[in-house]
Amino acid sequence: MNAEIIAVGSELLTPYRQDTNSLWLTDALNRLGIKIILKTVVGDSPAEMNSAFSQALSRAGVIVASGGLGPTDDDRTRQTVADLLGRKLRLDENIVREIEERFRRFARTMPEINKRQAMVPEGATVLPNPNGTAPGLWLEADGRIVILLPGVPSELKSIFEAQVRRRLERISSDERLFTRDLRVTGLGESDVETRVRPLYELYPDSETTILASPGAVQLHPRVWSRDAKQAEQILDEITKRMALALGEHLYSMHGEALEEVVARILTENRATIAVAESCTGGMLAERLTNLGGSSAYFLGGVVCYSNELKTSMVGVPKELIETKGAVSSEVALALAEGIRKRTGATIGVGITGIAGPSGGTPEKPVGLVHIGIADERGPRERAYRYPGNRERIRNFATQTALDVVRRHFLFPTSARA
Amino acid sequence: MNAEIIAVGSELLTPYRQDTNSLWLTDALNRLGIKIILKTVVGDSPAEMNSAFSQALSRAGVIVASGGLGPTDDDRTRQTVADLLGRKLRLDENIVREIEERFRRFARTMPEINKRQAMVPEGATVLPNPNGTAPGLWLEADGRIVILLPGVPSELKSIFEAQVRRRLERISSDERLFTRDLRVTGLGESDVETRVRPLYELYPDSETTILASPGAVQLHPRVWSRDAKQAEQILDEITKRMALALGEHLYSMHGEALEEVVARILTENRATIAVAESCTGGMLAERLTNLGGSSAYFLGGVVCYSNELKTSMVGVPKELIETKGAVSSEVALALAEGIRKRTGATIGVGITGIAGPSGGTPEKPVGLVHIGIADERGPRERAYRYPGNRERIRNFATQTALDVVRRHFLFPTSARA
Repeated sequence: MNAEIIAVGSELLTPYRQDTNSLWLTDALNRLGIKIILKTVVGDSPAEMNSAFSQALSRAGVIVASGGLGPTDDDRTRQTVADLLGRKLRLDENIVREIEERFRRFARTMPEINKRQAMVPEGATVLPNPNGTAPGLWLEADGRIVILLPGVPSELKSIFEAQVRRRLERISSDERLFTRDLRVTGLGESDVETRVRPLYELYPDSETTILASPGAVQLHPRVWSRDAKQAEQILDEITKRMALALGEHLYSMHGEALEEVVARILTENRATIAVAESCTGGMLAERLTNLGGSSAYFLGGVVCYSNELKTSMVGVPKELIETKGAVSSEVALALAEGIRKRTGATIGVGITGIAGPSGGTPEKPVGLVHIGIADERGPRERAYRYPGNRERIRNFATQTALDVVRRHFLFPTSARA
Repeated sequence: MNAEIIAVGSELLTPYRQDTNSLWLTDALNRLGIKIILKTVVGDSPAEMNSAFSQALSRAGVIVASGGLGPTDDDRTRQTVADLLGRKLRLDENIVREIEERFRRFARTMPEINKRQAMVPEGATVLPNPNGTAPGLWLEADGRIVILLPGVPSELKSIFEAQVRRRLERISSDERLFTRDLRVTGLGESDVETRVRPLYELYPDSETTILASPGAVQLHPRVWSRDAKQAEQILDEITKRMALALGEHLYSMHGEALEEVVARILTENRATIAVAESCTGGMLAERLTNLGGSSAYFLGGVVCYSNELKTSMVGVPKELIETKGAVSSEVALALAEGIRKRTGATIGVGITGIAGPSGGTPEKPVGLVHIGIADERGPRERAYRYPGNRERIRNFATQTALDVVRRHFLFPTSARA
C-alpha cells in the first residue's frame, strides 16, 4: 500500500521551520508496510490546499495530513477534504463538550471560535485527542483512506499510536518494512560504501541508506517483506556480513550513540572516567553525561582552556607547555595522566588541539588535535588531522576521543604506554 | 512571483533524511521577492516524478528542483522535465569535456555512465557546476521558469549564487521580502506572543513567525514590499515596539546566539569567565567555547560530577555538601565562588541540579537547578524548575546560566550579594 504525507501550515513555507512530523510518520507507516511515495508541504491558501489534496487522492491509497485543524479561518484542512470528497461539515456536539471540558480544566471558557474544531465531515470517524483541542479525523472514500491529524507533534503521535495504528494494521496485509541501524566510526562515507557495496548484489531485494556526520556513518539496511521471519533472517545475514566488512569500525548494530556504547563498556568493566579537554571545550564531558545514570562512571572533567589551568587544575608541568607547546603529544599525555591522577578515575582522557578558525601555524595547522588516554599502566597518545570548520573539528575530535576509549577496552593489549 | 520547490530523491522519503535544501532555497528566493507556495518531496518513480512536475508547472511561475541529476538510471529529473515540456534531450559536448576534465583532475577516467549528466533538454541554459559533475539547468517555457539543481547542498548553493540569483533578479521586479531576527529568553512562547500580538493589528502588512526552543524564543517579523526603504522603516518601527514589549528579555535584534551576546559583553567589559558545572555536564563550557577566539574571555571550567571533585577541584566544603546536599543554594554559591577564586576569573558561574530521569525527591524534584554567579563582590544564586526530559532540562539550565551572565552586566547594581 502506498501513502502520501501532506504537511499543512504557512510557517512550513518559511526558511525557519521544517516539517519534522513526516519523518516520524514515515517510520510509523513503513513499519505497517506502507510506503511513502510523495510528501507535500502546503500553506493555508485554498487553491494550493485543494490542488495538493486532490492530487494526493489521485495517486495514493492512504493520505496522512498534519496541521490545519486549528480554530481560525486559516485552518482549512477539514473544509478542503470535505469539499473534495463531496461531504458536508456538521457540528459534532460530543467534540464541543470535550473541548469545553478541556478549557474548564484550565479554568477558562471555550471561545466561540473553537467550535470550528468540532466540525466533522459526514461519515468521518473522530479520533479523540487527549492532549489538545483538535481531534483527528479518519475518512474513507472510493477505496482511499484520508487521515487528518493535528500539527503539534505530541498530539499527532499520541493520536496515531492510540487510534490510527490499529486501524491501519487491520487494512494493510501487505509487505512490511524491516530495518537495522548500524553505526560506524573511523571510516569515511565512501570507505564504508566501498566495503559494503559488494553486498548489494548479493541481496538485491534489500536497500541500504548510508548517512554521514562528523566521525560517524550510519548504515540502514532495509527489506520489504510479507514474511517477518524471512526478512529478519536476511537482515541478520546482511548485518553479519557488513560487520565482517567493517571490522572494529562498527561500534553498534542497534543504532546506539557512541557515548551509549562507551557508557556500557565502562559499566561492564566497572571503570570510571575523567577528562581534561582544551579545544573541545566541554563537548566530551557533555556527551559522556547526556545519559541518565552517567554519574556511575563519569567522575568529572576539566575544561582547561588557558595554559594556567592546564597546570593548576591538571598538573601539566609549566615547562612542558613552554617547551613543547600547549598543542603537543606531550601535553596530551600529561592531560590524560594528570586528570586520571587528580580524580582517581580508572581512565583519563586528554584532548588538546587547534579548532580554529585562527591559531594555526604551518607546523600546527587548524584541525590538528592530540588525544591521550591513560590507565594504571600509563598514558598513550595519537595526533589527528580533521577537515572543516570549528564545529566539525570539535565534533570529530569528541567522537574520536570516545572511540579511543571504546578501542582501549576492545583491544586491551594495545593500551600499554 | 510564486515558486514551488521540488526535492527529488528516494532517500528523502525514508525516516532518516530530511530535505534541508528547501529552507536555504526559500530564504534565497524570498529575498528576491519570490514566495514559496508549495514544496514537494518525490522519489525516483517516473509516475510520481511526472505528476509532481506537471502539477508544479500548472501552479507556479518558478519551479526549483534539487536532485535527480546524477549519472544513474534512477536520476530522472532531466528526462521528466524534457518530456513534460516537449523538448528532446541532446548530448552537450562541452559538458562532456568538463566532466572528463574533472575526473582527470582526480586522476580518474570518466565512466561512460557519466555522459548522462551531459544530456541537456533543447533550449536549456547550462549552469556550470564548479564543485561537481552535474551542471544545473535553466529552462523557460510558456512564461514559466524551471531551474534544475544538484541535490548536494554545496553544489546547489554555489550554482544558485553564481548563476541563478542574477537571472532571477532580472525577472522578478516584484515585491521582496524584508525580515528581522529577534531573540528572547526568560519568557515562554505564549508569553512572547501575548506581549507582541497587539502589534499585529498595527502592522497588518507584516507577518511574524514565532519559534521556540528550550529557553529561547525567536521572532521573525517579515514585510513584503517593493520599497526597500519603506520596508526597513516599518521593520525598524516593529522591532522597536517589540523591544519595548519584551524589555530585558530581548537579548538580540540580529539573530545572535546567546553565547555570542555573552561573548561580546565579556569582551567589552574586559572580563573573563570560568564555570563549575554539575548537571549540565560541560554544556555551558561547550557553548562558551563554540566561538572562535573564545580563549580571550573563557579561562576554563570544571565538570564536577562527583561530590569529591566539587571539593577537590572547586573547594566546596565537604560538610556543606553533607549538610545541605549537592543540589542546594549553598553549593551553587560555593561552586561559583570557588571556580572564580581558583581560576582568577572576573566571573564565576556554578550550576548544580537534577537533570533526571532518576535522582529526584519530593523536596528536590527532577528539573530543579540552582545557578550561582560570583564576582569580586561575592556570589548570588537562584533556583529554577524546568519541565521536560534530561536533554531539555540541561539545555534550559545552560541557556539560563548564559542569561544570568548577560543580566549581570546589564543590571550591575542587582549583582551585589
